[in-house]
Amino acid sequence: MQEMKKKDLAALTPPMGWNSWDCFGNAVNEGQLLANARYMKEYLLPFGWEYVVCDIQWSEPHAGEKEPYYDPFAPLLLDEYGRQLPAPERFPSAKEGQGFRPLAERIHEMGLKFGIHIMRGVPRLAVHRQLPVKGTDTTYDEIAHPSSICRWNSDMYGIDYTKEGAQAYYDSIFELYAAWGVDYVKVDDICNTNAYPEDPYSAEREIEMIRKAIDGCGRTMVLSLSPGPAVIGKAWHLRENANLWRVTDDFWDDWKLLLAMFERCEVWERQVSPGCWPDCDMLPVGRLRLNYVKWAERLGGPVETWTKFTEDEQVTMMSLWCIFRSPLMVGAHLPDNDEFTLRLLTNPEILRMHRFGTDAHQVLRTPESCAWMSRDAENGAVYLALFNLSDERAAVSAELEDLGLSGSRHVRDLWERRTLADVIGRIAAELPAHGAAVFALS
Amino acid sequence: MQEMKKKDLAALTPPMGWNSWDCFGNAVNEGQLLANARYMKEYLLPFGWEYVVCDIQWSEPHAGEKEPYYDPFAPLLLDEYGRQLPAPERFPSAKEGQGFRPLAERIHEMGLKFGIHIMRGVPRLAVHRQLPVKGTDTTYDEIAHPSSICRWNSDMYGIDYTKEGAQAYYDSIFELYAAWGVDYVKVDDICNTNAYPEDPYSAEREIEMIRKAIDGCGRTMVLSLSPGPAVIGKAWHLRENANLWRVTDDFWDDWKLLLAMFERCEVWERQVSPGCWPDCDMLPVGRLRLNYVKWAERLGGPVETWTKFTEDEQVTMMSLWCIFRSPLMVGAHLPDNDEFTLRLLTNPEILRMHRFGTDAHQVLRTPESCAWMSRDAENGAVYLALFNLSDERAAVSAELEDLGLSGSRHVRDLWERRTLADVIGRIAAELPAHGAAVFALS
Amino acid sequence: MQEMKKKDLAALTPPMGWNSWDCFGNAVNEGQLLANARYMKEYLLPFGWEYVVCDIQWSEPHAGEKEPYYDPFAPLLLDEYGRQLPAPERFPSAKEGQGFRPLAERIHEMGLKFGIHIMRGVPRLAVHRQLPVKGTDTTYDEIAHPSSICRWNSDMYGIDYTKEGAQAYYDSIFELYAAWGVDYVKVDDICNTNAYPEDPYSAEREIEMIRKAIDGCGRTMVLSLSPGPAVIGKAWHLRENANLWRVTDDFWDDWKLLLAMFERCEVWERQVSPGCWPDCDMLPVGRLRLNYVKWAERLGGPVETWTKFTEDEQVTMMSLWCIFRSPLMVGAHLPDNDEFTLRLLTNPEILRMHRFGTDAHQVLRTPESCAWMSRDAENGAVYLALFNLSDERAAVSAELEDLGLSGSRHVRDLWERRTLADVIGRIAAELPAHGAAVFALS
Amino acid sequence: MQEMKKKDLAALTPPMGWNSWDCFGNAVNEGQLLANARYMKEYLLPFGWEYVVCDIQWSEPHAGEKEPYYDPFAPLLLDEYGRQLPAPERFPSAKEGQGFRPLAERIHEMGLKFGIHIMRGVPRLAVHRQLPVKGTDTTYDEIAHPSSICRWNSDMYGIDYTKEGAQAYYDSIFELYAAWGVDYVKVDDICNTNAYPEDPYSAEREIEMIRKAIDGCGRTMVLSLSPGPAVIGKAWHLRENANLWRVTDDFWDDWKLLLAMFERCEVWERQVSPGCWPDCDMLPVGRLRLNYVKWAERLGGPVETWTKFTEDEQVTMMSLWCIFRSPLMVGAHLPDNDEFTLRLLTNPEILRMHRFGTDAHQVLRTPESCAWMSRDAENGAVYLALFNLSDERAAVSAELEDLGLSGSRHVRDLWERRTLADVIGRIAAELPAHGAAVFALS
Repeated sequence: MQEMKKKDLAALTPPMGWNSWDCFGNAVNEGQLLANARYMKEYLLPFGWEYVVCDIQWSEPHAGEKEPYYDPFAPLLLDEYGRQLPAPERFPSAKEGQGFRPLAERIHEMGLKFGIHIMRGVPRLAVHRQLPVKGTDTTYDEIAHPSSICRWNSDMYGIDYTKEGAQAYYDSIFELYAAWGVDYVKVDDICNTNAYPEDPYSAEREIEMIRKAIDGCGRTMVLSLSPGPAVIGKAWHLRENANLWRVTDDFWDDWKLLLAMFERCEVWERQVSPGCWPDCDMLPVGRLRLNYVKWAERLGGPVETWTKFTEDEQVTMMSLWCIFRSPLMVGAHLPDNDEFTLRLLTNPEILRMHRFGTDAHQVLRTPESCAWMSRDAENGAVYLALFNLSDERAAVSAELEDLGLSGSRHVRDLWERRTLADVIGRIAAELPAHGAAVFALS
Repeated sequence: MQEMKKKDLAALTPPMGWNSWDCFGNAVNEGQLLANARYMKEYLLPFGWEYVVCDIQWSEPHAGEKEPYYDPFAPLLLDEYGRQLPAPERFPSAKEGQGFRPLAERIHEMGLKFGIHIMRGVPRLAVHRQLPVKGTDTTYDEIAHPSSICRWNSDMYGIDYTKEGAQAYYDSIFELYAAWGVDYVKVDDICNTNAYPEDPYSAEREIEMIRKAIDGCGRTMVLSLSPGPAVIGKAWHLRENANLWRVTDDFWDDWKLLLAMFERCEVWERQVSPGCWPDCDMLPVGRLRLNYVKWAERLGGPVETWTKFTEDEQVTMMSLWCIFRSPLMVGAHLPDNDEFTLRLLTNPEILRMHRFGTDAHQVLRTPESCAWMSRDAENGAVYLALFNLSDERAAVSAELEDLGLSGSRHVRDLWERRTLADVIGRIAAELPAHGAAVFALS
Repeated sequence: MQEMKKKDLAALTPPMGWNSWDCFGNAVNEGQLLANARYMKEYLLPFGWEYVVCDIQWSEPHAGEKEPYYDPFAPLLLDEYGRQLPAPERFPSAKEGQGFRPLAERIHEMGLKFGIHIMRGVPRLAVHRQLPVKGTDTTYDEIAHPSSICRWNSDMYGIDYTKEGAQAYYDSIFELYAAWGVDYVKVDDICNTNAYPEDPYSAEREIEMIRKAIDGCGRTMVLSLSPGPAVIGKAWHLRENANLWRVTDDFWDDWKLLLAMFERCEVWERQVSPGCWPDCDMLPVGRLRLNYVKWAERLGGPVETWTKFTEDEQVTMMSLWCIFRSPLMVGAHLPDNDEFTLRLLTNPEILRMHRFGTDAHQVLRTPESCAWMSRDAENGAVYLALFNLSDERAAVSAELEDLGLSGSRHVRDLWERRTLADVIGRIAAELPAHGAAVFALS
Repeated sequence: MQEMKKKDLAALTPPMGWNSWDCFGNAVNEGQLLANARYMKEYLLPFGWEYVVCDIQWSEPHAGEKEPYYDPFAPLLLDEYGRQLPAPERFPSAKEGQGFRPLAERIHEMGLKFGIHIMRGVPRLAVHRQLPVKGTDTTYDEIAHPSSICRWNSDMYGIDYTKEGAQAYYDSIFELYAAWGVDYVKVDDICNTNAYPEDPYSAEREIEMIRKAIDGCGRTMVLSLSPGPAVIGKAWHLRENANLWRVTDDFWDDWKLLLAMFERCEVWERQVSPGCWPDCDMLPVGRLRLNYVKWAERLGGPVETWTKFTEDEQVTMMSLWCIFRSPLMVGAHLPDNDEFTLRLLTNPEILRMHRFGTDAHQVLRTPESCAWMSRDAENGAVYLALFNLSDERAAVSAELEDLGLSGSRHVRDLWERRTLADVIGRIAAELPAHGAAVFALS
């Protein structure tokens, strides 16, 4: 067996879990996290789903009160070393400076893993209060980069990596996260390193500092980078330092975005390997946008909380994510799942392809159709996904020869979970608009 | 006579004066300002020079102590309404909250006018201290735009003009400047409105707020915008709102920059009119960079404090600025002027062209030479400037017909201050490398 | 009086006329040209309209036969020196090598002037046939630039101006046009000099060669450059060499395009002066697109031949073109004009503003409204045009003070042709959606 | 064993050979090709070198006569179907329309393979002569795209793939090449598909037509695309259609270009697999630029015909090309090789790494150093290449742990061809400026 880098061992297969963003935005609370964890334990864990991830601004006590978005210059809760702590107003178990340790413990007790979101850089509050960086003689104003800021959130300054104390800051927060029992960290405002090409500052150095901090923190953690689109020319750097990186901007339940993902996957197909997972973003299925309901009027009318994807589109999405081997993070409020949604997430044959597929690549692409194939690393079966990207029912087919296959093949339909007649020469499927089929050929 | 807009009356001819930046950077003090004012009164005022302008960071007590550049997150001196006050450590007359009023008075007593520099936006300090905006119920964090920042100085946040209290801030500072007796304001980080095209935020709205604040402050003030290059496509907006706008990035004593100015002037030639002065930036002549001397070693060797322009290049610069009608702001430490520098700045015939020239435009341009002409609005004389842009001595000439002139003409050499033989058909001059000649044809 | 350059004397006021493009595309014929000339003589000439311009591809015998667009590699009619001749199939009077001379004579006899369109460069046919350039030992393949081509028409190669014989080609064609009696030349594929910024080749050198050829051809000709958008940073070069230059891409009867023109005019307002006319393109009024009728089905349905502009929009267009002082070239098939169209083109007070207005500039601009003013160079009246750019009826007003006016003023409505009550302080108009009003204040 | 696509079978390992460009430019002749073939047979064939490739403009009789560059509108030799034929003036065996068949036969007799260069598209000559496309009723002017041209060579027009007869053209030329016995085709002006992003035309469609023509021509041919840089976002399309694609613009004997190649390889490392070979371009070693000698003076002084790379730089280049698995095409005039050059090209251990290495990837990159590793697919050895990119002698090292290796390892130096002491923990080498070492660890 091939030896692997330590970083890659944290995510030998693409992570599967749930993230709070799609239903709770920046304002999730402890009860909501636990409700989703309980559902996962009961219904999803047997199929491999295991991460529960708390997304952005858990240190902001008033998140979501005035608006569904970020307050400028929000009063984040910091410890004496300028490190963010979960706000007890929203996470009662974090009281008395315990941070996320109690919550992580409860999640671990369910057999699950716990993840958190952070922003690149240091809190602006810590800078303007001139707080000390733990274990140094440095104050935050000395390591902050005054013009490296996030364009959509005002919580942080980027770090000037040339300054004494820069690495110490990242070491200090990952020391804390290790103590809490964090298994997965999603770092934001860091992935699309050329978002602002005129910027003299590069987030690449921060990625490296974070890698080093994780390697030294004493606990295994998955490192996930956001937002995308990641830059394909920087794939080497991402592969060396991270486990997951977003290949798109935020993904939502909109066919145009799903259609665009086929192009993203095409670009990134050769970069998928154990420990290295280009990330198509969350699955916006089931119940979503719950925290937007109270601002419905302000946002210009009622908010649709159920996914706007058709069932066929959801099958297409799940087929693409699974053959490409994207990480799978459910966006739904899980306790509200209906039967279709649960079945979508727990098809064992599709999830086997996600887990054991290898060398996935596109084999056909027209404006109206697409085909991908991969090979099961364990049993040698060939997986073939056919997609109808047009707005009308249509047949999609592939020549076996173009897949490098000869002779006749047994065929199993993975979504229908039934074995079809053997094929020779060509395999075809009649597909609904925006629909997909996945076959195993053996 | 044509009626004019009130804004334009503040600068019917291009302003002439002195600015502290080129010799003192961000660290000028009261004594230095007064020394230059006294020289101006004695030697330059009779020729029309009148503005004494204090450049950036007069509210920073420690400016220039550690570095010749800006400290990140510097401790600016603010009043209770978050308005910057001159630091008494550097401007003793500003003690007890008197601001620049005593200094302005002394300068006015000399028959001169007083100018200051400000940055667009509100102090970051005032934002993170949540200070109130004068005359409102608003605090600074409510009007600051968290991602509208200057890339080279960390003092300020831009203003979100959609917020209640935004205009009130600008009103409050111009009320203060009017009370001090300020005659000229150079606003920085505001002129090149498309420097960062991806930025959703536009400085155009801040320009308009400043215009409105000046119009309402009860005192006539010249409004100068920096840094450049201003965008020619926005000339209309600049003409409506400002008196001066920089057409280049910072200009220094380097032939390449001077050569590039010919292209800038070509682009902006049609935008010059009373009250509207595209600005070629300061004249880096005489003694410069005095505040860099103590960091000489750190900057990699001895600092040359005398201008690096040759005398011929200075003549070329002065000829271009004056025929184009750029504002004239001397960068030199005036008391150190030598005889050449003083003569350069006080040639009455060149300065008459600067004051009365009209319809200046380029009439010839090759890689090696250039010619400009204008017409004296009072006596009808035609001004012709010939430039040798090559690195060797060369003759430069122009056909009278190309200037729209016929017959023979009397010729006077303005730099030599003598009358030459009449010309027919063509006028020519033998010029040193990088040199110029200016003629009046009548 | 100010002396002027010879080039500028060819167009002391903005040219007014008719161009064949909007109704006949690339396939106009002699009968159509003459029909429009006769109408112009009878109805428009008294109001200053005088140019009849034959647009693109008059040397292509089969223009418009197969398609309403250009055939690739069309068989242009050339003389023995590779110069294009009008195809007698379409222009019978051009038989026996007489070119446009007979047609020009007939148009001159009506008291009108005659214009033609040409493409920058040399015919590809002449290059691949290795024809000689008149008066030289050079063949066309020696002066053609093999990669300087038009992207939308395959007739020509650009010229490599460094080659012997390059200027001779332009001299040879303008010698021919002078002999024919041409008064106006619209040169195409030449105006937007940075359309393809990666291109090492620049059309600026061709503009200069054409200028030189016209100056030497012995006949006064207006030089008009297309297509736009011209580049504002190159205004100096255009002013030195041309009389008209297009500030937009092709303009048609579409409100979005008309709305965009306000921004174009804003950018170019300072570049308007005798001999120098930024060009807003043809007026798509009345009967248009006649040559597209036979391809109607192919183009996806019936072709609307009448202008799609409302009457209010046409008033807005005419008001903007006239106060800005754009050249005026009617696109309509003139014999089909209705009463409104004729009245639109023959309002003597609006056309006086077009002829005598000076220093036109925008004085107000919001997303919904706009105001321009200019001053009558002869009688000193102030012209004020108010525009309602919104989609609903609305009042638009301007403060006299913002126009630099004081006291009370007499007001005349130029479109209504009646005198209104005097105004003090502010002038306002209630305007229909997309409508305009023009006033003279005295 | 994994099944493969037919296209990939043409190049299961990266092709090795010689190309005429670096020493003979566009003017190689039959004698020179054969001289290099004979050397290859005798000295290089035993090491795997086998392709002899004739580069650009073999149909131009006068290539290289007037200039070392391309004549505009050159008189290419065409057959009656507009297909280019080798000019007998330069390739005597091509007389009487035999084309390259006789030459290919002689090369095949030596046990070698024969390659040719072509430009994308159809000859402009065939278009303007309106020649017929073989096997169709179409003439060339009907399929040529009039504005799809190469910027640096005027021989061809691109093809409008939507036109009847477009595919027939490519079929007709590959039918001819198959009949000649061509084994390798380098297609030019086609690889960097977004070189001119404004261009509505895309070379992607031509790549697909060429792929289809090769698949149908009845002979196995390697398809190589030039020039680069290929666009990494289009890797999928290149992998589907081509065997080789250039990842750089032309590469020459200049350290700056070699240094830049490390970045190219970093970007493309995941795209290397059997049948798919990102191409670092020719190896400019030994005797080069022979055809430039006669224009020496015109080019500004004597031409250096020996490679300007130091021996250390050549080792670095060869190490990078071989561990990355670039195609290897020698640029030298082979008969002039010295002993060093021959040894450089015939190190059996380095060439084994080139042939059997797999999963090559960069493991370390600083501004001064670089390390790559791969794994021998047959014997499992780990290859490690260390590079000193600095301008001074320096030690470069790598941690075994960072390579995913543990314990101690046997080490062999492949360039020195000797076994070193075993290593534990770290492997290091003292390297000259711009030098490299390659180790096998087992």
